[in-house]
Amino acid sequence: MNNTTFDFIGGKTGDWKVVKMTTLKGDSLPKVTHIDKIQSSLINRFEGIWSLKGIISNLRYTEKSDKEKLAAVQEDLGRPQATYAALIPIRKNEAWWNLAQDERRKIMENQSRHTHIGMQYLPAIARKLFHSRDIGEPFDFLTWFEFAPEDEAAFNELLSKLRQSEEWEYVDREIDIRMKRV
Amino acid sequence: MNNTTFDFIGGKTGDWKVVKMTTLKGDSLPKVTHIDKIQSSLINRFEGIWSLKGIISNLRYTEKSDKEKLAAVQEDLGRPQATYAALIPIRKNEAWWNLAQDERRKIMENQSRHTHIGMQYLPAIARKLFHSRDIGEPFDFLTWFEFAPEDEAAFNELLSKLRQSEEWEYVDREIDIRMKRV
Repeated sequence: MNNTTFDFIGGKTGDWKVVKMTTLKGDSLPKVTHIDKIQSSLINRFEGIWSLKGIISNLRYTEKSDKEKLAAVQEDLGRPQATYAALIPIRKNEAWWNLAQDERRKIMENQSRHTHIGMQYLPAIARKLFHSRDIGEPFDFLTWFEFAPEDEAAFNELLSKLRQSEEWEYVDREIDIRMKRV
Repeated sequence: MNNTTFDFIGGKTGDWKVVKMTTLKGDSLPKVTHIDKIQSSLINRFEGIWSLKGIISNLRYTEKSDKEKLAAVQEDLGRPQATYAALIPIRKNEAWWNLAQDERRKIMENQSRHTHIGMQYLPAIARKLFHSRDIGEPFDFLTWFEFAPEDEAAFNELLSKLRQSEEWEYVDREIDIRMKRV
């Protein structure tokens, strides 16, 4: 058990009730009615119908100016009014991972404006990134979002912009799971 | 068991006989006579006197031009003539990890010329980096080097240059373990 490793357990019980699961690319995940997000360890727990593990890590692409802008405006998970959530596991293809750091950064920011797009929806959409690739998980990243019901349209717009970006051409598996707090 | 996770087990047996262990900064590790480097999993094995776990990951700082230069000249581990090895576990302080990506890159390359220094000693010194920070290990990185006995002086020179760099001001724990193949 540590502070940086989390399990996202899909099953029949949990703090978040699944409203919709949409597979955008690649293999789907079995349908579940609930998801639990719990602090965990690197050991697999084999609970629920499926579970995905992710680790909070240091920033890999964000530069100083954006880091400061983000820190000034973004909000934490767990806000009382943020009763809607989304879990979006994604995997990128080998072509992406074979790129050098500057090539990936260029696609993410210069072409795709990933951080800039996300920033337009702050502080309404709270977001936390979990890394899964290095620990042998089926996805590379798990992103968890929380927002108030009235910000759902804005959240959909944010996703639509990202999915049209050059960066998303490298995504080969993506599932969009929408939830409401129980 | 996977292809990217390795355990470095210090104990009384192993493929590499320890010649010298030097603690340069921070807490030392208990003395051992041998080290084994084995493919492993994320589960702790609790073998030997101590064991360190590391994961091979994607490049985090290397840019395209350096990536291509490195690929053209660097050699793999396991060369028959490379009977000397070094395992150097290091940890960097919180100030380092709180820096943004561009700040860390600037210190590593513009000021410290980390890649440039390493490149001067290729192909003689083979090197492999293992990441440990994200999996809750006591060190952030484990670097494993292999070289022929006649290249030991060059290897010492390489380390001396890196340890004088600005990047190394952020290192708060470093142990230098030298070995010969059994």
